Amino acid sequence: MNEFELIRRHFTRATPQAVLGVGDDAAIIQVAPGCALHVSVDMLVQGRHFFADVDPVSLGHKALAVNLSDMAAMGAAPRWALLALALPQVDEAWAAGFARGFFDLAARFGVELVGGDTTCGPLTLSVTIMGEAPQGMALRRSGAQPGDDIWVSGRLGEAALALACRLGRVKDVPQDVLDECLLRLERPEPRVGLGLALRTVAHAALDVSDGLMGDLEHILAASGVGGEIELEALPTHPWLAARRGEHAALIAAGGDDYELCFTAPASAREALAGIAAQCDVALSRIGRIKAGSGTCLLDKDGRAFPLDKKGYDHFA
Amino acid sequence: MNEFELIRRHFTRATPQAVLGVGDDAAIIQVAPGCALHVSVDMLVQGRHFFADVDPVSLGHKALAVNLSDMAAMGAAPRWALLALALPQVDEAWAAGFARGFFDLAARFGVELVGGDTTCGPLTLSVTIMGEAPQGMALRRSGAQPGDDIWVSGRLGEAALALACRLGRVKDVPQDVLDECLLRLERPEPRVGLGLALRTVAHAALDVSDGLMGDLEHILAASGVGGEIELEALPTHPWLAARRGEHAALIAAGGDDYELCFTAPASAREALAGIAAQCDVALSRIGRIKAGSGTCLLDKDGRAFPLDKKGYDHFA
Repeated sequence: MNEFELIRRHFTRATPQAVLGVGDDAAIIQVAPGCALHVSVDMLVQGRHFFADVDPVSLGHKALAVNLSDMAAMGAAPRWALLALALPQVDEAWAAGFARGFFDLAARFGVELVGGDTTCGPLTLSVTIMGEAPQGMALRRSGAQPGDDIWVSGRLGEAALALACRLGRVKDVPQDVLDECLLRLERPEPRVGLGLALRTVAHAALDVSDGLMGDLEHILAASGVGGEIELEALPTHPWLAARRGEHAALIAAGGDDYELCFTAPASAREALAGIAAQCDVALSRIGRIKAGSGTCLLDKDGRAFPLDKKGYDHFA
Repeated sequence: MNEFELIRRHFTRATPQAVLGVGDDAAIIQVAPGCALHVSVDMLVQGRHFFADVDPVSLGHKALAVNLSDMAAMGAAPRWALLALALPQVDEAWAAGFARGFFDLAARFGVELVGGDTTCGPLTLSVTIMGEAPQGMALRRSGAQPGDDIWVSGRLGEAALALACRLGRVKDVPQDVLDECLLRLERPEPRVGLGLALRTVAHAALDVSDGLMGDLEHILAASGVGGEIELEALPTHPWLAARRGEHAALIAAGGDDYELCFTAPASAREALAGIAAQCDVALSRIGRIKAGSGTCLLDKDGRAFPLDKKGYDHFA
């Protein structure tokens, strides 16, 4: 079996949502009437985005999850994906595991793999995701307004804590905490349902992949506003919450969270409580949008918390 | 300047055809009414698809060209692209050159780069291409019918000859011939206009990227038919044509041609002569579709030419 047969065996599934799936020069898809197509791509490289010994099931999950997270951040319903894979050698067990992780998550969200490419090379994955949202309904980064609350879903810093442990940069984490955090690093849960529910509520949104404070700046810059975040309000694991000062960089700037950060007017607070219950995900109000520019992390006394200067950023 | 600023500087252009281009969690595009979206992805890896010392302008051209060729093979008008790039280091001259090659070709075909991803890693490129064709008008691989003529555009084997020279496997090629063939290897010309013109004429089509005989089998298998090809009818460089027997594998199975191979009924011959003139590309009738299965390369006496067994396939 060569690598192409291997991939055909493991990566070809029925694609009833597509006009034409895997097997021609291109896939053909029909976007629903009244909808626009939302499309993005992520590339994952061994040694940079994942360790060489990562469980292939987890890698298959994560390769798709980070892309579903982009659709969630747009308020788009994910529909179709393409997978480009460079593999150093043919390894059927690896391919089977990767495919299981990928397709299990795809099935949960109704996503079809309609095409791709495989080649020999250093292990590299590139997933293109496509989704639909009604025209004009997308959640963009550019709609934040002064006075908006800033919200984030789920908990921050857990994946970053797991990575810091793995790299030996944090050493005193109990095993049960580490296990929880490793799951967050390896099997992030894309907030697709939340993104859909936020379409009519949020002014601006993105997904937190490179760390909250840095990612929030993209919203502020695109919207021409400023913002402030309260360190004490950031949702995180109880173990990290008890060490909030020491591990502020992990929580506020750690990355790999794949939570949604969004802004909404104060009048939306009650609606958001309902959305949190409906989507079964915690939503935390963590700060506010102001006129001006730039972002500031505040400690519990309302003073600027100097994230970088105190050397808390393990990943700089 | 970090790699992300570098890429933003060189890879962000206006995207008036898109609802939303680079800079959010996803791009937003609106497919024209009555059209379906055609989408495919290719991954190019250093050392496998190109040499480490390749001119970055040529690489930028080729990365897009091979994808445009997929759109041509579907009869789709290319519109939007995504570019995922892993780069070993920040190199502004390289990025500027790559971007020039990419965008010069994109501009010629009205293609907009609407998104992408950049990361650090072994040099790897993944381009996703999206295009439009009226619903039901795509050129598929599955429509070939017994009695159809088999056609190919342009000339075959030139890129493969250049590669064989570069690898030292063919040594007696005059410099002027080599220069012509190197241009075909490094700057393939996607047959986009031809693909559009073939929509109402061809029964089946694909682009020749891995070698004519192997690629043709995809049409035959998808259509449930057989086919035969006349070695003497294959269009190629005069230098190769004079050595057709010796270099049959380069011509018939060399790869990297990025020509269109298609089938059409005999009644379309006159229309195809007009299309060849209109598109300024040679079209050669190289064989015919038959009932049955499998493909056969015939010599000038009508006998099977044993491509593999005589060891002509330098790249097996």
